[in-house]
This record gives sequence, structure tokens and C-alpha cells, in this order.
Amino acid sequence: MKINPSPPIEWRFSQRAQQLQSSFIREILKITQRPEIISFAGGLPSPATFPVEKMQAAFDKVLANNGKVALQYGPTDGYLPLRQWIADSLSIEGSTISPEQILMTSGSQQALDLLGKVLIDEGSRVLVETPSYLGALQAFSVYRPQFASVDTDDEGLVPDSVTPLADGARLLYALPNFQNPTGRSLSVARRLELVETCARHGLPLIEDDPYGALSYNGAPSPKMLNMNPDGVIYMGSFSKVLTPGIRLGYVVAPLPLARRLELAKQAADLHTSQLTQMVVHEVVKDGFLEQHIPSIRQLYGDQCQAMLAALETHFPAGVSWTRPQGGMFIWVTLPQHIDAMQLLDEAIANKVAFVPGAPFYANTPETNTLRLSFVTVPPERIREGVAILGRLIKAKM
Amino acid sequence: MKINPSPPIEWRFSQRAQQLQSSFIREILKITQRPEIISFAGGLPSPATFPVEKMQAAFDKVLANNGKVALQYGPTDGYLPLRQWIADSLSIEGSTISPEQILMTSGSQQALDLLGKVLIDEGSRVLVETPSYLGALQAFSVYRPQFASVDTDDEGLVPDSVTPLADGARLLYALPNFQNPTGRSLSVARRLELVETCARHGLPLIEDDPYGALSYNGAPSPKMLNMNPDGVIYMGSFSKVLTPGIRLGYVVAPLPLARRLELAKQAADLHTSQLTQMVVHEVVKDGFLEQHIPSIRQLYGDQCQAMLAALETHFPAGVSWTRPQGGMFIWVTLPQHIDAMQLLDEAIANKVAFVPGAPFYANTPETNTLRLSFVTVPPERIREGVAILGRLIKAKM
Repeated sequence: MKINPSPPIEWRFSQRAQQLQSSFIREILKITQRPEIISFAGGLPSPATFPVEKMQAAFDKVLANNGKVALQYGPTDGYLPLRQWIADSLSIEGSTISPEQILMTSGSQQALDLLGKVLIDEGSRVLVETPSYLGALQAFSVYRPQFASVDTDDEGLVPDSVTPLADGARLLYALPNFQNPTGRSLSVARRLELVETCARHGLPLIEDDPYGALSYNGAPSPKMLNMNPDGVIYMGSFSKVLTPGIRLGYVVAPLPLARRLELAKQAADLHTSQLTQMVVHEVVKDGFLEQHIPSIRQLYGDQCQAMLAALETHFPAGVSWTRPQGGMFIWVTLPQHIDAMQLLDEAIANKVAFVPGAPFYANTPETNTLRLSFVTVPPERIREGVAILGRLIKAKM
Repeated sequence: MKINPSPPIEWRFSQRAQQLQSSFIREILKITQRPEIISFAGGLPSPATFPVEKMQAAFDKVLANNGKVALQYGPTDGYLPLRQWIADSLSIEGSTISPEQILMTSGSQQALDLLGKVLIDEGSRVLVETPSYLGALQAFSVYRPQFASVDTDDEGLVPDSVTPLADGARLLYALPNFQNPTGRSLSVARRLELVETCARHGLPLIEDDPYGALSYNGAPSPKMLNMNPDGVIYMGSFSKVLTPGIRLGYVVAPLPLARRLELAKQAADLHTSQLTQMVVHEVVKDGFLEQHIPSIRQLYGDQCQAMLAALETHFPAGVSWTRPQGGMFIWVTLPQHIDAMQLLDEAIANKVAFVPGAPFYANTPETNTLRLSFVTVPPERIREGVAILGRLIKAKM
């Protein structure tokens, strides 16, 4: 049963849909997933770190003991025992976080989308680091803000540069630990200064923290959340410490905002998988992460050292890079005349890939920058790939 | 480490956040989950129908055989074998659906959100049935459209009433099979007429079909998708035929729209759980649903009959109701002077709950309507609850 042929629809998309662009990284990944390519382009955690058997046992246990509940619709804010566990683990340094402040999300990307939805009108000023996390720029862009880029240096975001932009802005988005893309961390003094500056201006400060637990020496950094729970919105994720494919993150917000985020989540997808939340609670509740995370730190730390050593050996004078103390990324700055996008074409022809830095800038890009990830590449391939890149760069000096 | 106390943030929410309201149903559910209440308010499928052991075996198998892939980040559009399976199952009546047209979503509620995001600007005209599914009204409202209510009668939506509203409208949203909230289905002749009317006006037609498989006599209804795959957007879900807690749905769209939806999904939450998609594929690929769905039809059909018989016995003349051939809901129309919201208060005092009809209207509500769900209540409790409601209604006649 078909109707007579009719002219095709002339699609009329919303103005916000016209902002939508595919993440440049996801486009690169399609090319670079071929096995012959040494890819430093990924932002994916190493599957070697996934506790598959532990997850399998937890799925078994939850489905066997509590299957009908796990498979039924659940509350929008999330599974209470898991929210309680998160609240307890964040209630440190004299501040108390309540489960009511926590909304479980489908990965922390969804928290970015919900925050954009609830806080950004067309033309709203939104403050981001220079450079900033691409996924956040993408999520916020949908709501058509005016991005204002806040200065950064080797210690990360410069709090002083927030002041002239703060009044009337809707939010400041910061990734203080082992930032994506630079690998930089914000010093403790700067955290305090930043939290104070934002509080003084009534500016909501988003602390996105997917990598905080991946400090190579194991030392935790103080959270801005605990410095001012009434003004800081904290985002966490199980993607980098457990596994990303299950899509489980959370956002911690002061109550008036938490309530709005919950309503936005209800309209967006009702709730995040009950089963996944119950399984993750089963996995983490007895301290598994404390045993598991050190093995991730060790792996990433060793591969980071291998890459730093290779950069030292193969990259010419005039090229600089960050020296991360944790996380998944190194940020390279080439001499100004070298365009990383052009370099990428040559690198791919030579079977090496990375991500050019330009897409990470909300406004004016620095085209001579690039991001390297070392987490999914074994040391000998890291050395090989960095040597090839070094040769290509030297040819342009 | 804390900063000095600062004044609390004066939250400034986006205009769209000010539209956000909690679903009235979810609020009622909080009250009515007490076990002493006979609740006809739910929209939840019966957990008795959840194939827990089948799901458990599939999680085991996928994690054992393919755990590292299942737990890693995945493609935004979804797990290809599952999209192929869906495409094959929808390629009927001479139309071919390709996996490229299919985007996997976190429940079909997310498809509603993404469609709203991509198709609706502030003030866009959006056509909905009278009454319509509350979750769709909620999802679309965020994007601040002007809703236009299309007339319905006992055969569902009246295609003629679309014509004067079609030009310039952004979409028509219809739920043609066992509609939530009315339980009504659109006749085949009307489906053809509606698809033709929309095609003639270049109006995208959304066919939301969560209940189509739940026809009590097992007879499938022709899909509007197959009548015009270039103009119809089809939404499906595993919530009602498998389990809702895993949050897995999908949207099938003409390619230009499918591509935009994929970009919107990427910004919204990157992708839906790989693991869940692989597990559902494992469960459905060898025809499990064909064995499983008849047991759901039987259960819901029997309980529907029990409720219809009880309504016949206990409700007074002057009250009318729908006689669904499938799905989960019966729609009751009281005499005009009876307000269902007031009746609900009395009903809850007498330990019975239902959902008043008013929230299902985009514009002017009919306050003398209500929705009854029979799927999670055993027949003897159905009779008991309907008798109590009948007594309360009679007292108002």
C-alpha cells in the first residue's frame, strides 16, 4: 500500500540544527581506525583497562537478584544508592554533597547538553578556556551562545582574565585536571582564585572532571566543588575509570539548578538505564575503583613517559609540548608557520594520525597546535609514530 | 579548602528552561506507587512480561565474546547489525528501508527530543492530535513551538482537519496504533489519506509506534512509513516488547533528516550504550520477539477485557469509553460537569488512582476525561478499583 509519488520534502531545519557540525575528531577517527595507522588521534580509553569480567559478574548478579526492577522504567534523577555513593565520595574537605544535588546522565556529554539547554539563550555569553574541550563547544553551540575565550598559560586558566568577561555571562566551563586537549592542570592557588572570582560575580562555574582520578602519582587534586558547593557545578563520569560504552556520567549542581536539569532530562530521555546504574553501583560499592584505577594510572603514565621521551628525541628545537601529570593527552605547539591541518595530511600518508588543535578553539584558532593521545598505542609504536612526525616537522623547519 | 562565604547565585535560566514542567504523570506515580493503592495511572509495561533470563544470557554472551568492543565508545548512529535487523523488519509492503536511515536512541523519548531540536524554532507551528502523547508535548515544548490541535474522533485523527493547518507547519506528530492516551487506532483508509495530505503539503509526518506490536488479535496494522518512506518519520522502541529500563529506541528518517538527527545526537550524548544494543541484537536476531510478544498480547488483552467488563458493570449511563484492540490504555469521557482532577483527589482518598486527561491536550483541555491503564493490575483488583471509581462517579451524576 503506497501513495502516489509526491515531490520530496523540502526540509526546513531549525536555526539551531544549522549550527550542527560533526565533531572533527569523530571524522578523523573514521580514517584512522585502520590497523596500519599509528593513531594518536583517539580520545578513547584503552580497552586493556576495561574490567570485563567484573562487569559481567555484576550484570549477572543484578539481573538474577533484581531483574524486574533493573529492567523497568526508573526515576529521572537516577538510582538512589549510586547517587548516594557518589555524594559520599564527593563529601570531602568539609563540604557535604547530598544525593538530591546529583543527576545521573547518559555519559557526561549529556550533562553538557542539559546544562546548555537550561542555561544558554541565543546570544548568551559563555566563557570557555583557550583551547577547550571540543565536545563541550559542540554541545553548547547548539544553543547559539557567544563564546568568550578565557586566557590560559602553562598553569591552565588565568583567573584574572575572567573578571572583565564575567558580568552577565551565563557560565564558565573549565576542565581543571589533565585538560582535554592540553593535558594541563590548574594549580591549587588558581582554583581558589577562580572559584572566588566566579562567586564574586555570581557566575556559575562548571568543573568538568573526567580525568581527575588518572593522576599518575595518585595524588588527588582538590575539587573546586568542595571550595564552593553553592556556586560550582561538577561533572563526573565512569567512562575513563570503568568503561565508556555503558554511557554513564553525572552532574552535581546546587539545588535550584539540579531541579531544572532533572526536568530537562525528563523531557530529553526520561532517565538513564536503571540496569546500568545498578550494575555500576554493584561494581563500585565495595571499593573496586581503589584497586582498579592504579592499574590505569600505571599504563597511561608509562605510555605518557614513552611519548615524552620520544618527543625529546625526535622533535626539533622550536617545537614545545606539555608534560602532563595524568590523563590522556599531550599538546604540541609547532613553530607558527606550520599548519597542523596540512601536517595531518602528510602524516596520514605516512600512516600516523593526530588531531589538529584548531577545532578546540571557540574563537580564533592557533593553527600550529595539535593533540596527541598515547593511551591506546604501545610504547614501541609510540616511538615509531613520533619519529615519523618528527621527520615531517623537521622537513618544514 | 573553602572560599569565604559569598551570596548565593541568582540563577538565570534560559527561556526554554522556563517552559520545563514535570510530567504530571510522573508526579502522580510518586503518590500511587504505594502498594495499598490500585493504580490505573501507570504507563509502565508489566514486569511480568520482562524476559529476564533471556536478557541475562545475552549480557553474558556479549560480554564473554565481545566485551572490549561492547564496553568501548561506539558510533553515533548505532550498532550496525541491530540497525540492519530493524531495517529488514521494516522493509515490507514493497518499500525498502536502509540502515542509514536509522538512528538508535536512548528510548524513543530521545527521538522526540532530537526531532524537536532539529525541526522546531520558537513559534514554529507543530500539529498534534487532540489529545496527544504527553511525553511528546513535553519534549517539543522545550523548543517553544505553537501547537495546533488536530481533530480526532473514534477512528483517530481526522485527516481533513490537517489541511487548513498544514502549510508552513514544521511537523505533524501522530500515534496511530492504540494511542497513548486514548487507545484508539487510525483506520487504514485514514492512514492513506493522512500520508497523502502530508505529502501534498510537504509536511513531515511523525509516526510514533511504541504499541503497534501489541495488537490483541495479532493482526499488524500497515505502517504509514511504508506508504511514503520519503515523507514519514517512524519511531520505534524496545520498551514495550522487551523491557523499558534499558532505554533503547530508534527513529527512521529520510536521509537529509537522519543526518541532522545524527549530528544532534552526537552533541547530545555521543551515542547510546553499545553493550545494550549488542545485547538486544543478540536477543532479537533469531526471532525471539515472535515467540515472546504473543504472551504480552495475551496478558494485556485479558486485562483489557476485564476492565471493559468492569466498566460496563460499574460505570453509570452518561459515561463513555474507548474499546482498544491493543496497547495499554482505555480513555474515559465523563459527563461534562465532572472534573477528572477533582475525581482523582477523591479516588486517591479511596485508594484508586488514574491519570486525568487534561495534561494530554496541547491547547484547550477537556477536563471531563481520564486515562486508565490495566496492564500492571490483576483482574480482581481491576474489578475492585473500577467499582470504587463507578461509585464515586455515580455520586456526582
